[in-house]
Amino acid sequence: MIVTVTPNPALDVTYRLDALTVDATNRVAEVSCRAGGKGVNVARLLHGLSGGSVGPVAGGVEVVAVGLAGGAAGTALLADLDEAGLAYAFVPCAAETRRTVAVVDSGAATVTMLNEPGPVVTPAEWKALCRRLEGLLPEATVVVLSGSLPPGLPPDAYAALVRQAERHGVPAVLDADGGALLAALSAGPEVVKPNISELGRAMTARNGTSGPTGSANSPDPAGGAAWMRREGARAVVVSDGPRGLYADTPDGRWRAVPPEVRGGNPTGAGDAAVAALALGLAAGWDWPRTLVQAAALSAAAVRHPLAGQIDQAAYLDHVGRVRLERARSESEDSQCR
Amino acid sequence: MIVTVTPNPALDVTYRLDALTVDATNRVAEVSCRAGGKGVNVARLLHGLSGGSVGPVAGGVEVVAVGLAGGAAGTALLADLDEAGLAYAFVPCAAETRRTVAVVDSGAATVTMLNEPGPVVTPAEWKALCRRLEGLLPEATVVVLSGSLPPGLPPDAYAALVRQAERHGVPAVLDADGGALLAALSAGPEVVKPNISELGRAMTARNGTSGPTGSANSPDPAGGAAWMRREGARAVVVSDGPRGLYADTPDGRWRAVPPEVRGGNPTGAGDAAVAALALGLAAGWDWPRTLVQAAALSAAAVRHPLAGQIDQAAYLDHVGRVRLERARSESEDSQCR
Repeated sequence: MIVTVTPNPALDVTYRLDALTVDATNRVAEVSCRAGGKGVNVARLLHGLSGGSVGPVAGGVEVVAVGLAGGAAGTALLADLDEAGLAYAFVPCAAETRRTVAVVDSGAATVTMLNEPGPVVTPAEWKALCRRLEGLLPEATVVVLSGSLPPGLPPDAYAALVRQAERHGVPAVLDADGGALLAALSAGPEVVKPNISELGRAMTARNGTSGPTGSANSPDPAGGAAWMRREGARAVVVSDGPRGLYADTPDGRWRAVPPEVRGGNPTGAGDAAVAALALGLAAGWDWPRTLVQAAALSAAAVRHPLAGQIDQAAYLDHVGRVRLERARSESEDSQCR
Repeated sequence: MIVTVTPNPALDVTYRLDALTVDATNRVAEVSCRAGGKGVNVARLLHGLSGGSVGPVAGGVEVVAVGLAGGAAGTALLADLDEAGLAYAFVPCAAETRRTVAVVDSGAATVTMLNEPGPVVTPAEWKALCRRLEGLLPEATVVVLSGSLPPGLPPDAYAALVRQAERHGVPAVLDADGGALLAALSAGPEVVKPNISELGRAMTARNGTSGPTGSANSPDPAGGAAWMRREGARAVVVSDGPRGLYADTPDGRWRAVPPEVRGGNPTGAGDAAVAALALGLAAGWDWPRTLVQAAALSAAAVRHPLAGQIDQAAYLDHVGRVRLERARSESEDSQCR
């Protein structure tokens, strides 16, 4: 069983309108709502793979979504999980779950995101979340820790959850940003999956510079991944958009480059890579197999308009065409860029 | 007891941010929510006048807000009415109450409104709303009918409510727009309060032109009000922004011009005028007194940042300085413009 933990999930609301005019009254033509947040998207993707006829999962995979939900938005979030048939074990919180509003202007083809701040979580609610996870860990094969931390959680919350999982011998896949990511490295997560921007920000925050090679805006993934491993992560997989994945692991270093993907929705690509990394750990795949699946699922997620879902035809097309290259050494790889 | 009916209320959400960037991700700094919709604002204003130490109400006025509320937004709306201490008798509907989102860009000083469409109301829910009103009419002195009709309601819904009130001898004040306003005139509402734009739209819709004088964008209030009385309204009060109110009544015609008001929030001004018109009918005031109060309350509402509330100091200042003029005849008044 794969457990995804989303401390700061969201109710993702989409407003479609013909034209958005700033400083005027706009009539929204269509409203839709959906449970969101990175870990929820990972759970939805894994759940979809189990039910689907194509994909990397032969016998299906059991997944449980864990998180905090409060207020009317929290209720709507859980109702959407019910509708999707997703198993979950959320902990109630008093403050209201945040909403994100995507204002889609069909005429101008723009998407304006309005992201509410997260709810302030109390120490008692944080303890309840840890207890909920504790009850699931005996059955868990992998724990996925995804997304931002809501206000009120300690900055080392992910470090605590990584250590809690480790006490049960359960490996953790971490997808976080900023301080939450930095503080968790020393706890030794099994895999960390920053995207290239998150890697740059982490390097800048730790060093005041972006390290020996690269700049904060376009850091060197090889140097950054090696640095994160020195900080404590057992393996690091950097997602770099159309350039694919760079992995630094105890078994070696690879690049996995998907076939060219035109256009699409990049939001769910990172979540799809995380889903594949969790699957690989749960199933005992070797790194090459895991990375090919991660690159193919990411590219197939870009082709689907909704986060947490993939274009199955694109997946079938991509999975045989991912280019996997061994990267021999940190410095050699840097020179190849 | 004054009863306000709001068939299409809203949960008014305000997002404050430092800068709004279209086609990018924006972090909302502050979220606030409030029960809204024109009739709810009128009820809030009347309730506030009863409790306050200043204002036109000596012994206080009892007010009950009636409407339809559904889903999470409906629950939040009723919770806000509870918090405000406002008496209400809402009817549940299955579809979710609409939200309005006001995106306030503090830096650029812009307000971008995103208005969700209203819920689709079923015939059974509409009947339940009529029954709820029926139970209140024996105790009512005035009924206020305010705002748009949600999808699903018949276009002559307000006409039906005006006639229902009349069967109990209760006068109705109507504040509506477009087809809902036009269809209600023949039912003989006691007072209709269009603003100048609504008057222009109604004239254009009925005649294909704006009538004998004025254009659709800036119609002649005297000609328009006289026309609405010929269509069935017993009295018509046209609100015309800083130019004040024009009234055509069985007792004569007046203009009530408030002292100059700089800046402010014009949203709640019409609702404040409606509140004063309802008060005047309930208390048996003559038209001059009613119109002076309506002009003063409107101007004081413009000075308050939130709809449904007034700046009490501004009210006290304005009420003695409203200029009331008799308008002798329809054609004569037109020439004075």
